[in-house]
Amino acid sequence: MALAIHGGAGTISRSSMTADLEREYRNGLEAALRAGWSILEDRGSAIEAVEAAVVSLEDFPLFNAGRGSVFTHEGTNEMDAAIMDGSALKAGAVAFVRNVKNPIKLARLVMQRTEHVLLAADGANKFATEMNVEHAPDEYFFTEHRWQQLQDAIAAGRVQLDHTQAETRPVGSVTRGQETSLGTVGAVACDSEGRLAAATSTGGMTNKKFGRVGDTPIIGAGNYADGTCAVSCTGHGEYFMLGVTAYDVAARMKYKGLSLDDAASETIEHLTSIGGEGGLIAVDSLGNIVLPFNSDGMYRGFISGQSEFRVDIYKG
Amino acid sequence: MALAIHGGAGTISRSSMTADLEREYRNGLEAALRAGWSILEDRGSAIEAVEAAVVSLEDFPLFNAGRGSVFTHEGTNEMDAAIMDGSALKAGAVAFVRNVKNPIKLARLVMQRTEHVLLAADGANKFATEMNVEHAPDEYFFTEHRWQQLQDAIAAGRVQLDHTQAETRPVGSVTRGQETSLGTVGAVACDSEGRLAAATSTGGMTNKKFGRVGDTPIIGAGNYADGTCAVSCTGHGEYFMLGVTAYDVAARMKYKGLSLDDAASETIEHLTSIGGEGGLIAVDSLGNIVLPFNSDGMYRGFISGQSEFRVDIYKG
Repeated sequence: MALAIHGGAGTISRSSMTADLEREYRNGLEAALRAGWSILEDRGSAIEAVEAAVVSLEDFPLFNAGRGSVFTHEGTNEMDAAIMDGSALKAGAVAFVRNVKNPIKLARLVMQRTEHVLLAADGANKFATEMNVEHAPDEYFFTEHRWQQLQDAIAAGRVQLDHTQAETRPVGSVTRGQETSLGTVGAVACDSEGRLAAATSTGGMTNKKFGRVGDTPIIGAGNYADGTCAVSCTGHGEYFMLGVTAYDVAARMKYKGLSLDDAASETIEHLTSIGGEGGLIAVDSLGNIVLPFNSDGMYRGFISGQSEFRVDIYKG
Repeated sequence: MALAIHGGAGTISRSSMTADLEREYRNGLEAALRAGWSILEDRGSAIEAVEAAVVSLEDFPLFNAGRGSVFTHEGTNEMDAAIMDGSALKAGAVAFVRNVKNPIKLARLVMQRTEHVLLAADGANKFATEMNVEHAPDEYFFTEHRWQQLQDAIAAGRVQLDHTQAETRPVGSVTRGQETSLGTVGAVACDSEGRLAAATSTGGMTNKKFGRVGDTPIIGAGNYADGTCAVSCTGHGEYFMLGVTAYDVAARMKYKGLSLDDAASETIEHLTSIGGEGGLIAVDSLGNIVLPFNSDGMYRGFISGQSEFRVDIYKG
């Protein structure tokens, strides 16, 4: 059994992080790991474990997904999520959903209750109403911090992937740690029967305009699972879409016969070569775990079959 | 140089086709081939050739894209399109656009004028207005035939991929040929400098509800191009999304060292094994062309470097 999670990758530097804030992040990652692991320990399925881990990350206000989602240009919260069951080769995804407490649960309902893979915009919101998923009012998603990010982004005239300091702040201005991450959350798991699953969720880009869809709800780009491996990505989504990054890891394993470690390393090398920044987490059916990234940091953690438990933020 | 196009795959039987209708289809395919080929002959780029071919297919009223798009449940026409320049590894796509005469042109503008890959719904329509693309009124997209398809689908209580006879008509009822196709159009090209490009466009599913997004606007699923090959798919979109079908052809070539022919055959075999129906067209950088499908027919055609010109509809 194996479980890995991430809370976004990006320019996360020790100098911009306080001890209190770092402790908060670590607590958020640990809670998500425990939520997913307890399901695997009870012989639950990989798909249930990744859903539970991502629900925990969505409920945690510091990550850009669910409750902590960033604001669009219009001051709304529009969220994307995808989930894939590798053992059944089934998937569900949603884009531009509003006022849904846990978008990952809605993505799973798309997988279970429809013949479709991806529902978007007004139609996806109608589906949420019809499925009676837990509704959350606008206030639930409001955090002063995210609202200020939007005001800053509008002032700077930029669309932002979460909040990259270098692009929007005068050099030397004070930022909180999470402001410099490329915000997405995700989980991948291998259960006691070797079944694999992946789940990914995001609040998108601060000051997003023109209905931009990133890699998160795209099967093969930001999220993928089959019998070979399960992958969840985070970073500058457009490059993950052009690189078909999540599926590329599986393809290198299946068609080149590479190990998970080698396949994921090559995929990240390719991502770097086309100018993409970010990272991914992946597990294979033997319970191996990798968490490669090419950014300064990635909020991440894993529990392995030997009950090895680890949470990390920075590089190295 | 090489150019291939398709106008959808599905249950296309000789018995349901009249000689006049077949001639119309062949004329539509030939016009699109000539539009793309004349650009390649003038040493134009692959991306310009596939755009021109798809514009021609979008303007032709019998295919489910652009002018001939099917109706959603609400009686509107919502269209998706994607284009990818393999030489630059750049792509643009749109989903749920309305009243845009040629969605493929809008997809190309996303590639050229934004930092994004996919724009959807209201935002994509705002982008269309801002880019001043050619507008077409609702009447332009209205055909009695498509409207009747919607009424039939509503009466039958089914969402339809274009109009599959077996699912919606009493056995033995008369249908027109295109009513039984899985409607999408697409083009792939290799230009005189070996550059590859792919373009795909669709009007989606008759009686579509809940904002379903299919494979067409998804890079890697319904459309993909890199330095290895260019691929455009048509069929039951959900399976192409789960199989990451368009990119899978490229991955089998890159990572297994297969020829275009062998890679595409294996990809279609895999599609069949997971229950997917449809086909794809693909070219490689040597100008090889393949047009495999597992359905009864696929509207298709190609022109190769030896100026071999061919248009086909049925199997074999």
